[in-house]
Amino acid sequence: MASFSADDHRFMSRALALAARGLYTTDPNPRVGCVIVRNGEVVGEGFHRRAGEPHAEINALIAAGDCAHGATAYVTLEPCSHTGRTGPCAVALEAAQVARVVIAMEDPNPQVSGRGIRLLEAAGIAVDVGLLADDAQALNPGFIARMQSQRPFVRMKMAMSLDGRTAMGSGESQWITGPEARCQVQRLRARSSAILSGVESVIMDDSRLTIRAEQLALDNGDDVASRQPLRVIVDSHLRLPLAAACLREPGRTLVVTTPSHDADKREQLIDAGAEVQVLTADHQGRVELSALLNWLATNEQVNELLVETGATLAGAMISAGLIDEMQLFVAPTLLGGDARPLFALPGLALMADQQRLNIHDIRAVGQDWRITASPLATGASGDTKVP
Amino acid sequence: MASFSADDHRFMSRALALAARGLYTTDPNPRVGCVIVRNGEVVGEGFHRRAGEPHAEINALIAAGDCAHGATAYVTLEPCSHTGRTGPCAVALEAAQVARVVIAMEDPNPQVSGRGIRLLEAAGIAVDVGLLADDAQALNPGFIARMQSQRPFVRMKMAMSLDGRTAMGSGESQWITGPEARCQVQRLRARSSAILSGVESVIMDDSRLTIRAEQLALDNGDDVASRQPLRVIVDSHLRLPLAAACLREPGRTLVVTTPSHDADKREQLIDAGAEVQVLTADHQGRVELSALLNWLATNEQVNELLVETGATLAGAMISAGLIDEMQLFVAPTLLGGDARPLFALPGLALMADQQRLNIHDIRAVGQDWRITASPLATGASGDTKVP
Repeated sequence: MASFSADDHRFMSRALALAARGLYTTDPNPRVGCVIVRNGEVVGEGFHRRAGEPHAEINALIAAGDCAHGATAYVTLEPCSHTGRTGPCAVALEAAQVARVVIAMEDPNPQVSGRGIRLLEAAGIAVDVGLLADDAQALNPGFIARMQSQRPFVRMKMAMSLDGRTAMGSGESQWITGPEARCQVQRLRARSSAILSGVESVIMDDSRLTIRAEQLALDNGDDVASRQPLRVIVDSHLRLPLAAACLREPGRTLVVTTPSHDADKREQLIDAGAEVQVLTADHQGRVELSALLNWLATNEQVNELLVETGATLAGAMISAGLIDEMQLFVAPTLLGGDARPLFALPGLALMADQQRLNIHDIRAVGQDWRITASPLATGASGDTKVP
Repeated sequence: MASFSADDHRFMSRALALAARGLYTTDPNPRVGCVIVRNGEVVGEGFHRRAGEPHAEINALIAAGDCAHGATAYVTLEPCSHTGRTGPCAVALEAAQVARVVIAMEDPNPQVSGRGIRLLEAAGIAVDVGLLADDAQALNPGFIARMQSQRPFVRMKMAMSLDGRTAMGSGESQWITGPEARCQVQRLRARSSAILSGVESVIMDDSRLTIRAEQLALDNGDDVASRQPLRVIVDSHLRLPLAAACLREPGRTLVVTTPSHDADKREQLIDAGAEVQVLTADHQGRVELSALLNWLATNEQVNELLVETGATLAGAMISAGLIDEMQLFVAPTLLGGDARPLFALPGLALMADQQRLNIHDIRAVGQDWRITASPLATGASGDTKVP
C-alpha cells in the first residue's frame, strides 16, 4: 500500500464528493468522480452523470485541458481499459500526459480488475491505489455486489411504530411516518435500480412504487425522476390485479412468477402493461428468491435493489440471509399487540435462533427515527457502532 | 422574574450537581443542593443525603461557618419553614445572616409553598426565585408529582427486540439486552421509591425486583442498596406463589389485591413475608390502577414508581394515561412476529386511536439503545426532540 499525503486525502475526498453527485443518475453504471491537480491546485473536476455520457476522467480532462500535463489525477474507481463511447479512460489519461494517478479502489469486476492500472503503469505513469477505499466502496455497494457476486446489494426499507408494527390488525394502513421520512424513502428509491415488493402488499396498498420528483426535494429532481426504477413484483401465482395502479405508472413493471402460473392471466397482465418473467419455484411453490436476485443482476443490471414489502416476504428474505442493509423508519407511536408485525420469521421459535443485527446508525428524521442495520449470521453476536 | 448573572447560573448549576448526589439516597425526601458564595468565592457546599440527616442548607452553612455572613446562598428548592429534626432551614439562613438567597424553584407542596420565601424576606434577606427551575424540577419529578397531585411520577421500563418483542411466543425468556443496559435498569430501580409489577410477569420470570449493589457500578453502591425499593405486585386474585423469590429478598413486598380475594391465601402470603393491601376493583374485577397510584403516594410516600411488567399491565397503564415516562431498552435483534408483544393495547383497533409518543432521547447503551419517551394524549401529535 502506498503512503498518501494530507493533500492526497483532501483531493480524493473531493473526488468522492463529486462522484456522489451521480448517486441518482448513473445507474446501471457506478458513481465515479475525478479531480486533476497540478502544483497543488485543482485544474479540472468531473464526475460520471449518466450511462452513455462521458466518464468522470474524461469530464475532468476536458476541464483541465493542457493543465493536465504533468498533473496528478485522483479517481475514485480504477480507470477503464475498454473502449466505450468515449474510448478507454486509461488511454485518455496517458494521452493527456498526467504524471501520476491516485485510485481509491480497483475495478470490482474480476474480469478487468487491474487492467487499467497496468495500462497506466506501462505508459510510465506513477499509480497509487487504495486511498479512501472504504468510502469509494460505500458509493457503489450495488455495482460491486453485481460485479463480484452476480447479485444486487439488497436494501430493505420498513416503516414501523415504536412497538414494531406496520399497520392495524384489520389491515387498515396509512403513512405512520412524517414527510421527512417519506422524502428519504423517495431518495432510497431513486438510488436503486429496482424496487421489489410482494404481490400481497401491492394488492393491499395498491402501491405505485415510483419516484415523484416533487417529493425528492433535490435540485435535479425532474432529471432524477425521468428514470423510474424497475418495479419487481413477486407474484408466484399471478394474483396481481389488472387494474393495479403500478401498471399505469411510467417505467417498467416486472412480474416474477413460477412455472405453475396461469397462462391466460399472464397474457392479460402483459396486455395491461406488465412484463412477466418465469423463474424456478422453491419447494413451497414460491419464486426462489436467491435465483431472482441472481437473475435481476445478470439480466437487468440491477445494482441496488430496494425491498419494500410486508412481513411475510420481508421475513423470508431475512431468514434466507438475502438482506444486506435494513433501513427502519420508526414513528413515535404505539399501535399495540394486535397490530401487524414487522417481520414474520416463521422458523424462529427459540431465543437461540434470534436474528441478531448490527446497528450502524440511528438518527432523527423529522419526528421519526431512522435505524440503519444489517442482519448478522444467525447465532452471531453483533458489534453496535455508535454513530 | 428576577434577572440572574452568569455567576448566579454557575453557582446554581453547582448546587444542582450537588443535589444530584442524593439521587439514590434521599427517598422519600427531595434531592436538594446548596452553595454559599461570598465575594464570588464558594465558602460552603452541601446536599441532602438521606431522610433524617441534615438538609442541604444546613450542611452548606456548617461548611461555611462565619463566612456565611453577608453571603449569597444558592438553593435548588425553597428552604423549608417547618421544624424538622434540624429546625427550619429558612431560620438557619437568617441566623447565619446571609444577605441573599437564590432559589431554583418554590416548594411544590401547595400547603407550604412560598412560606420559606416570605420568612426570608421578612428577615430582610433578598430572595430571587426561578433560576434554572426546569433543571431543579427534573431532579425531583416524583416528589413534585406526589406533592401536587398525590400520585407518583410513573416511569415504565421495557426491554425489547428491534421488532418490538420481549420474549418468545412459548414464553421462553432471557435477558436480551447487555450488561450496560442492566446496570441502567438497576439505577432506575435505585432512584425509585417503589417497583411495580404484575403477578403474571412475577410468576413467569420469578423476578426478585431488587437492587444488587455490585450491578449498580456506583461508588456508594452498598449504601444505595441498603435501601431496597418497595416491591408492589398487582395481584387481583392473590395468585402469587408462596415460594416466590421476591418474598425472600431484603426489603418489603406489598401485594395489592381486590376485595374479592381469598382470605386464606392472604394469611399464607403474610406468613410468607408479604404485606397485603386491599384496594377497590375496577369493573373487570382488577385492581383500580389510578386508585393504586394515589394510595402509594399518600400511604407509602412513593415519589418515583418504576413499572417493570408484561404486555397486559403495561398496556393497561398506557391506555389509562398513567405513564409519565417510558424507557425502552432496544436490543439489536429480531425475535419475529410470533414472539411476545411489547404492549397489549386492547382498545386500539383503528389508526386514529394510535398512542402517539414524544421521544425525548435516543442513545447507545453498550450494544443496545435506550429510548426515552412519554405518551401523548390519544390523538395528539408529538414533537420529537433531537437529543
